Amino acid sequence: MATTAAGSRELAHPERVGIRLEGVLHALSDPMRLLIVRDLAAAECELACSAFALPVSKSTSTHHFRVLRESGVIEQAYRGTAKMSGLRRDDLEELFPGLLDAVLAAADAQAGRD
Amino acid sequence: MATTAAGSRELAHPERVGIRLEGVLHALSDPMRLLIVRDLAAAECELACSAFALPVSKSTSTHHFRVLRESGVIEQAYRGTAKMSGLRRDDLEELFPGLLDAVLAAADAQAGRD
Repeated sequence: MATTAAGSRELAHPERVGIRLEGVLHALSDPMRLLIVRDLAAAECELACSAFALPVSKSTSTHHFRVLRESGVIEQAYRGTAKMSGLRRDDLEELFPGLLDAVLAAADAQAGRD
Repeated sequence: MATTAAGSRELAHPERVGIRLEGVLHALSDPMRLLIVRDLAAAECELACSAFALPVSKSTSTHHFRVLRESGVIEQAYRGTAKMSGLRRDDLEELFPGLLDAVLAAADAQAGRD
């Protein structure tokens, strides 16, 4: 896990080389986290955490975002008072070509059947 | 979870419609289970559990095979005294096109970097 010393509001992210397939798959193996990732993929831009209407408590939501960030699926940064999140598409595509799109397509297919 | 009543040696498998993306991703999010799935994909046929040289105890190995089976990633059956395992390629491909191949390619890519 790469960390920075730039201040308490800097959030820890793994460098690209530290992103592990097992961690990415684990991060994506939860319905709430899949929902977050699908929303970020659909938005094609950074979203504030408050933009997600998740049916869970704030602390649970924060936990899910942290799992996604620490696994390397998303990056997060403070912009003023907002915590913004975005998919690490380039890093994931470089490491695991086609994986994120296959998972997103699978999630869409499953949502279409539910 | 679909179960059968055909005897104690019948193993429970989910029907295709009961296979969930989250469960599949969770099953694949463990290094040992990824290893099993890669071996099965390379073999392109059923393998006996004893064919896998996993660096874990028998009970841990059995646990991993059960997680893979109960999530719908593999099917298992007794043939005489051997418990044989095979990938549920057709079911996974029908439900989540391209997903298994993307995960296998990602696992190959990661193994090549390690």
